[in-house]
Amino acid sequence: MKAIVTILTDFGLSDSYVGVMKGVMLKINPELKFVDITHSIPQGNIKKAAFQLFTAYKYFPKSTIHLVVVDPGVGTKRNPIIVETNDYHFVGPDNGVFSWIYENEDFKVYKIMEISSLISNTFHGRDVFAPIAAKLSLRIKPSELGNLLNQWVKFKPPKPIIKSNTIRGEVLDIDGFGNIITNVPKSVFEAIAKTNFKIKIKNCVIKEIKTSYMQNHRFCTPKLGKSPIAIFGSAGFLEISLPSGNCAKLLNSKAGTKISIKYNLYKKT
Amino acid sequence: MKAIVTILTDFGLSDSYVGVMKGVMLKINPELKFVDITHSIPQGNIKKAAFQLFTAYKYFPKSTIHLVVVDPGVGTKRNPIIVETNDYHFVGPDNGVFSWIYENEDFKVYKIMEISSLISNTFHGRDVFAPIAAKLSLRIKPSELGNLLNQWVKFKPPKPIIKSNTIRGEVLDIDGFGNIITNVPKSVFEAIAKTNFKIKIKNCVIKEIKTSYMQNHRFCTPKLGKSPIAIFGSAGFLEISLPSGNCAKLLNSKAGTKISIKYNLYKKT
Amino acid sequence: MKAIVTILTDFGLSDSYVGVMKGVMLKINPELKFVDITHSIPQGNIKKAAFQLFTAYKYFPKSTIHLVVVDPGVGTKRNPIIVETNDYHFVGPDNGVFSWIYENEDFKVYKIMEISSLISNTFHGRDVFAPIAAKLSLRIKPSELGNLLNQWVKFKPPKPIIKSNTIRGEVLDIDGFGNIITNVPKSVFEAIAKTNFKIKIKNCVIKEIKTSYMQNHRFCTPKLGKSPIAIFGSAGFLEISLPSGNCAKLLNSKAGTKISIKYNLYKKT
Repeated sequence: MKAIVTILTDFGLSDSYVGVMKGVMLKINPELKFVDITHSIPQGNIKKAAFQLFTAYKYFPKSTIHLVVVDPGVGTKRNPIIVETNDYHFVGPDNGVFSWIYENEDFKVYKIMEISSLISNTFHGRDVFAPIAAKLSLRIKPSELGNLLNQWVKFKPPKPIIKSNTIRGEVLDIDGFGNIITNVPKSVFEAIAKTNFKIKIKNCVIKEIKTSYMQNHRFCTPKLGKSPIAIFGSAGFLEISLPSGNCAKLLNSKAGTKISIKYNLYKKT
Repeated sequence: MKAIVTILTDFGLSDSYVGVMKGVMLKINPELKFVDITHSIPQGNIKKAAFQLFTAYKYFPKSTIHLVVVDPGVGTKRNPIIVETNDYHFVGPDNGVFSWIYENEDFKVYKIMEISSLISNTFHGRDVFAPIAAKLSLRIKPSELGNLLNQWVKFKPPKPIIKSNTIRGEVLDIDGFGNIITNVPKSVFEAIAKTNFKIKIKNCVIKEIKTSYMQNHRFCTPKLGKSPIAIFGSAGFLEISLPSGNCAKLLNSKAGTKISIKYNLYKKT
Repeated sequence: MKAIVTILTDFGLSDSYVGVMKGVMLKINPELKFVDITHSIPQGNIKKAAFQLFTAYKYFPKSTIHLVVVDPGVGTKRNPIIVETNDYHFVGPDNGVFSWIYENEDFKVYKIMEISSLISNTFHGRDVFAPIAAKLSLRIKPSELGNLLNQWVKFKPPKPIIKSNTIRGEVLDIDGFGNIITNVPKSVFEAIAKTNFKIKIKNCVIKEIKTSYMQNHRFCTPKLGKSPIAIFGSAGFLEISLPSGNCAKLLNSKAGTKISIKYNLYKKT
């Protein structure tokens, strides 16, 4: 039975771990098509995995199964779960990695019960999650593979706070180019900070939104040699970016770094 | 409808960007098969991307669609294009990335017109190029997706200059092993530099062509501790290589580094 | 004809080499499904490739073809071979990379004879091994592609030595997390070292087996700041691991590093 399984892990690409999970799934359903989201999540970084999943999941066809194995608690009593939304199934550990899904979708959570007794303590990606993902691809229902839960682990994706003509946000993620992805949605920004705004992150102040990385960029002060720009990124958030450079390194920023946007600095008359 | 799409980008593998493009394409054509060429092109390095594409494209079945997203000008007015050759379609930005194709194939170039109004400024791989590649895979004609162009961006792939018993060439690319790939075709070399030649790159002189990395290599002077060898590489060009080592580092070479081959140094009698 | 080909190389992911091999195979059999095992084997490291193959091959469906191109001797007279086992075919160079398969399966070895005359000296992955893998996927028999051999290159996978209440083993591999994978099978350990054992690697002594990376770990002496744990890993061997850290770096260990387990240290009465 044809189906798509996406895979997101912190396994890296230097070992056979990801390939082995695919083999396990193909033994159960040889018709599967796999798409790797990324395997370069820093070891055990659940928040980054959760955000990467958020940026990707909705671009896949209905019925896609999203398999997420960032699982520092493997071998402990943390639950293995299936999350069912209107369009997708998600499979992985109950450690908060689906927090952004919980925030954005109607969902049910099932504790996976159908687990072989012969499983390792260290590789539930292979021994628990991959088999369950493959069984879901055969249209076996989550309710046949697990029990409905009414509690699950969730962290609250940070939202910007708006007060006194200021949006106070923070950095969600740094991408591979060094782009700084903030938690300020384009829609929020555009609704209130129309003109006369001042974006501040670390020692950099930006007064303009660019529409490409290549536009000239003269509005960041102080001059940093290379000047960061502000742009609305592909995930729908305000990003701070350094054309042809690594902005996160330049501004010494990482997930959690604060950003503020003051707006309506002076009214037009 | 079954089809193959190859993907070549500078997105790296640490973010969801490549996976997202695959999701977008699978929504349009769930029968697609993807082959990653590489996603490790240094950010915005159009020349390297163009050469990597050249080394790969012709090994794929007829009708393969080659999607190339190395696009430092994303969000500017550079054209998104489809290049049609006898056997393949190519999709990407009009920034020279298809220069080697233009050099080696009969082709037509179309400016992509069918673009949604809801596109990001930063991720045309997802919002423009992937949808077009997927539509081509459904056998929609380029002429239905864009308008024929009569101008396009092209850089001239560097050719060796032959004069006074000397071939003057340059380095095209350094591969992941540190092999130095020059622009001197095997066919050119073999036609004129039959014996008694002297290959010179940086401070290394080589007087022999090897047929494997493992042959003993005593002909490079001066002795560099480890000795580079000359060999005809898999792309059909003369390569300078260091058995079990990184030749480009040893010889401090990169794309553009000069190489010369003097031949007919003395005639056999 | 549908078939699965896994691919394991030392080509890295920055060049088109792996993609090109897939293109070559798709030209011969467009129905192929590929699974990458890893392409990050250090250049020419046959032993690591052999072990990675061992950890992966048996998780794939019957009839999977395992293509291994870690081939420092490309261009020399080393044989290109097909290894046939009950469930799988293996294709690659005869340099020992299939040693773990020889150790664990009934097998036949064929020297590949069907080779085009137009092959490169440097990329037999593309010119020899990929075409043969694709032909095997069309159910062409190994005996039609090569001649039975009665000699092949094999290294002996190291086995632990058990003597005087001590198991003397060594490190097989370091994984991407820095986990130290030893050659002591779980079954051997559990059969004899039931309690009162002392695992010693470098200057670290461990007296307990954990069942997860997250269990508290107070039994390693001397205190190293961070304490390594012992756990049975997913390949079925004793592993030494540092929760949230790189154990191999901490203990300066690599393939070949010695480990000893003394057991029955004092009898229960």
